[in-house]
Amino acid sequence: MPSSPTSSGPDVSSSPGWRDGAAAVAMLTFAVDGETPVLAAGRRYAEHAMAMSHQAYDLRRGLPRLLALLAEFDLRATFFVPGLTAERWPDAVSAIVERGHEVAHHSYSHRPSTELTPAEERVEFERGLEALTALGIQPTGYRSPMWAATWRSAELAVQHGLGYDTSLMDDDRPYVVDTPSGPLVELPPHWSLDDWEQYAYLPEPQLGNVIEPPEKALSLWLAELDGMREYGGLFQLTAHSFLSGRPGRARALRQLLEAIADRGDVTFMTGSELRTAVLADPGIERRTHEPVKADPAVYPNW
Amino acid sequence: MPSSPTSSGPDVSSSPGWRDGAAAVAMLTFAVDGETPVLAAGRRYAEHAMAMSHQAYDLRRGLPRLLALLAEFDLRATFFVPGLTAERWPDAVSAIVERGHEVAHHSYSHRPSTELTPAEERVEFERGLEALTALGIQPTGYRSPMWAATWRSAELAVQHGLGYDTSLMDDDRPYVVDTPSGPLVELPPHWSLDDWEQYAYLPEPQLGNVIEPPEKALSLWLAELDGMREYGGLFQLTAHSFLSGRPGRARALRQLLEAIADRGDVTFMTGSELRTAVLADPGIERRTHEPVKADPAVYPNW
Amino acid sequence: MPSSPTSSGPDVSSSPGWRDGAAAVAMLTFAVDGETPVLAAGRRYAEHAMAMSHQAYDLRRGLPRLLALLAEFDLRATFFVPGLTAERWPDAVSAIVERGHEVAHHSYSHRPSTELTPAEERVEFERGLEALTALGIQPTGYRSPMWAATWRSAELAVQHGLGYDTSLMDDDRPYVVDTPSGPLVELPPHWSLDDWEQYAYLPEPQLGNVIEPPEKALSLWLAELDGMREYGGLFQLTAHSFLSGRPGRARALRQLLEAIADRGDVTFMTGSELRTAVLADPGIERRTHEPVKADPAVYPNW
Amino acid sequence: MPSSPTSSGPDVSSSPGWRDGAAAVAMLTFAVDGETPVLAAGRRYAEHAMAMSHQAYDLRRGLPRLLALLAEFDLRATFFVPGLTAERWPDAVSAIVERGHEVAHHSYSHRPSTELTPAEERVEFERGLEALTALGIQPTGYRSPMWAATWRSAELAVQHGLGYDTSLMDDDRPYVVDTPSGPLVELPPHWSLDDWEQYAYLPEPQLGNVIEPPEKALSLWLAELDGMREYGGLFQLTAHSFLSGRPGRARALRQLLEAIADRGDVTFMTGSELRTAVLADPGIERRTHEPVKADPAVYPNW
Repeated sequence: MPSSPTSSGPDVSSSPGWRDGAAAVAMLTFAVDGETPVLAAGRRYAEHAMAMSHQAYDLRRGLPRLLALLAEFDLRATFFVPGLTAERWPDAVSAIVERGHEVAHHSYSHRPSTELTPAEERVEFERGLEALTALGIQPTGYRSPMWAATWRSAELAVQHGLGYDTSLMDDDRPYVVDTPSGPLVELPPHWSLDDWEQYAYLPEPQLGNVIEPPEKALSLWLAELDGMREYGGLFQLTAHSFLSGRPGRARALRQLLEAIADRGDVTFMTGSELRTAVLADPGIERRTHEPVKADPAVYPNW
Repeated sequence: MPSSPTSSGPDVSSSPGWRDGAAAVAMLTFAVDGETPVLAAGRRYAEHAMAMSHQAYDLRRGLPRLLALLAEFDLRATFFVPGLTAERWPDAVSAIVERGHEVAHHSYSHRPSTELTPAEERVEFERGLEALTALGIQPTGYRSPMWAATWRSAELAVQHGLGYDTSLMDDDRPYVVDTPSGPLVELPPHWSLDDWEQYAYLPEPQLGNVIEPPEKALSLWLAELDGMREYGGLFQLTAHSFLSGRPGRARALRQLLEAIADRGDVTFMTGSELRTAVLADPGIERRTHEPVKADPAVYPNW
Repeated sequence: MPSSPTSSGPDVSSSPGWRDGAAAVAMLTFAVDGETPVLAAGRRYAEHAMAMSHQAYDLRRGLPRLLALLAEFDLRATFFVPGLTAERWPDAVSAIVERGHEVAHHSYSHRPSTELTPAEERVEFERGLEALTALGIQPTGYRSPMWAATWRSAELAVQHGLGYDTSLMDDDRPYVVDTPSGPLVELPPHWSLDDWEQYAYLPEPQLGNVIEPPEKALSLWLAELDGMREYGGLFQLTAHSFLSGRPGRARALRQLLEAIADRGDVTFMTGSELRTAVLADPGIERRTHEPVKADPAVYPNW
Repeated sequence: MPSSPTSSGPDVSSSPGWRDGAAAVAMLTFAVDGETPVLAAGRRYAEHAMAMSHQAYDLRRGLPRLLALLAEFDLRATFFVPGLTAERWPDAVSAIVERGHEVAHHSYSHRPSTELTPAEERVEFERGLEALTALGIQPTGYRSPMWAATWRSAELAVQHGLGYDTSLMDDDRPYVVDTPSGPLVELPPHWSLDDWEQYAYLPEPQLGNVIEPPEKALSLWLAELDGMREYGGLFQLTAHSFLSGRPGRARALRQLLEAIADRGDVTFMTGSELRTAVLADPGIERRTHEPVKADPAVYPNW
């Protein structure tokens, strides 16, 4: 049986310690995927010049524009970079660190771990880490590509010396996972705070099929921001530089940052800052992953 | 031939008796599905840690938050809980009853009945009932998972002593179904008053593919609320605690509850309260299910 | 080569004769499909009680409500009814005629003609006609189910004595098609003036996958209404009684009717009224269908 | 390694030379596809009279209406026409040139080049060119159908004497591609400035599945327009005459043109005018395509 937090009363407020007195914490994260999500859909797409150019926009225009935008606000963000992107675009990736931001681990090829064997997941993890290390980057956090974590992913991160993960969605505030190899801070993301579902469109491979106006994305994110302020949660935005780096969307992101600042009670933190704050909070919840077992008699379809 | 209500004139007003003088009745229902909809899509998804965590949010955060929200308004709601969820999260499910709400039957595994044999549907029904009974819960109502009722489902509910169902969509006001085993009150739901189509997104398994801002869901639901007030209908909201329990969406739900209260002419009832009111109304419509027969000569495709 | 209207100058205004002096003509059409679109997706869905009930709403609530709404405005509309629906729900269908509206032909089973052999299309056509005739209805117009007309459909309508069709989308004003068997008035519909794309949702069979708020549908239809007023076109609304007959949507339809009336320069006509007006207009365009031939060397995929 | 522009600092402003002093350049492009996208989905659709009529609207109403709209503003635009459309509708296509606009190359059949062999892509290119030449049109620019360029497409354009392409998405301002056969100006488009994703709907073949109101498309395009003004980019609208030529959408396009004019700092240019301006700008970026190679050990799925 999973331990049920409701036994101690409904919606106990999140321990305020990790928030450093703020109503909510905003963690700005950017996935700098480059060509990897398209190649993960099929090696043949390397021959699709438009699809490749659609992803190269990421490093050529999207990333520099977002770095400039963050500089306007003097904000530091967390960038998740697949190893292959670091190898293909070393200067662009190095520029992230040079401008004071945090670069975190995001696999090597962006293939979802749930489609890999345990050995393949380990190779992916290590090869991705090596690619960042080759640029002099020592990441402290990890995000599974497509958030598709397995029950092995957390321990893999701990075994390689990482301190936080941002892939699991069973909360809207941080907690600590105790893995057999040691503790890991989990910083939960959510699809509703991701720009992919609002902006991604590519028919072949099919990466998404709606294109919403920036004002719609803004409405969604501001609603969740105010929700996080009410409930003391972690507002973790997940933007993709090839998507939110487009001109009109970058301007909407600026409006979002202005709105967050205007709220006056939200603190910005990077992944590693959050990890430190979480570990220093004695009231933080600690959990152990309990992999779900499905009975073939109840669920006969594999 | 189905009996046609139009023979007695168009849009005869709904008998007002069951509404207790109100313009419309609001029935707040919450599906507490937990991991079941994902496992029903395939047993293999038990190995997808993120997908499982996405559903565990339901019991860890969504449900407690919604219970707290209902307490703000001193409202009682109806919660549909699959048996497996009751077994996996007993404390969370017991908390629903402890706070004065109604828990109703929602199958054991959340597999749609239309994909089961008659014997399998019966096993599902009974196993789900046993799981609730094991927590000391005696449900009085039933909802087919995904509303995917068969022509057997209504009688199955009556045979097990249940008094109402909420799966069929041939009306927007309650009616009584006379089954061979006795009468059952039908409280019709509708897709447009469900939060799934507005909020659910999970690519693998694919649970949904759009994420709308709460203000869009609110616009939809308020339009239907006012329609129900005009036409004397049942406004049955179907929310999922893993979806509407997110911070920004919980706030939109609060706005909806405030709007309903502000209308001044809408009464809140639970499923069993509605059942009582419906059975006490001599003007209520009574029907017999007449399963549709499709001619293979007209519809050759199975 | 198709004859190209641009040779006589761009966007020559539509002949104003058929519009009777109005800026645009509004033709309100309702498809009363009942169970047919679901059965056309597969005979097995007859066993899905919820799916069947979802469609029975059409005749039980949607149609009577829309008839009452039209009566509020003293408007006459055109209802397209598949033969099987007329057989299953004779009282409801007869009520349409009794209230002064026009009933037109919409096939027997709602299977798309493009998936039938020529012989099957003819059988469908004749059986649908017989079902209406059995209720004493002599339709003067035809609409292919799902608008999926073949190159044979127009002549089939003429051969059976019908005077107009509403399936082809190559214009936004009426024209006359000269078939080998005689002339047929074409009253062009369009997907953007259909409520299906805004409101239809059913996962199994999959009838649609988004549910928009009525205000969004209204925005779309009013934009097109004003476009038709500017360009002298035919505003042909296609609503489905199982969709637009829902309470909130019926209210939006009332708002649309009020807006049309408020414009002051739009005339309402039924299909047969339009047919008469079109045939009386000497300036109306006449065409001959020229089936497209696709070269297998250019388009190798069947 | 691709050369990384971030090595010289983030988001270096676009060279202003090509913009002729304006904040942004607006390039209005229209794809006049006619029947080709439907036939490219399957030769059998030639037998679907409605689908064919849906596309014939393009030449019968959409194109003339858009030509009239451009005349209101005295604007010149760039029209991309597949060879087959030019052969089927010669008068309509000739009218584009007669009214002072530019006609550019858009393949022969609209089949995506990524699904063709190199020899087939060449045949498609040449046959498309011949069809335009037969009407006395000498195009200077090219757009791959569905923007699905291969790594061969740019050189193919240069070899046939064309001067610009508009298919690749790795930028939001023009640049020069140096191919082995000579230079080509690339004028990058983007899905978010395309009307297809907002307006296209056809179930069989499936061309799209949402229909947005014109006001939503306008919101999206104006956001991007202002983004392009801030960042000095190319606002390249891609409209389809069978979509944006509908009455309500044509009016929204008028609103867009008025908004662009009202901004006061945006210049309109056609493709060939842009090509001249780009080549005259010494600050323009020059690139060489570097086809991506995907390692089968990293991406085992073809």
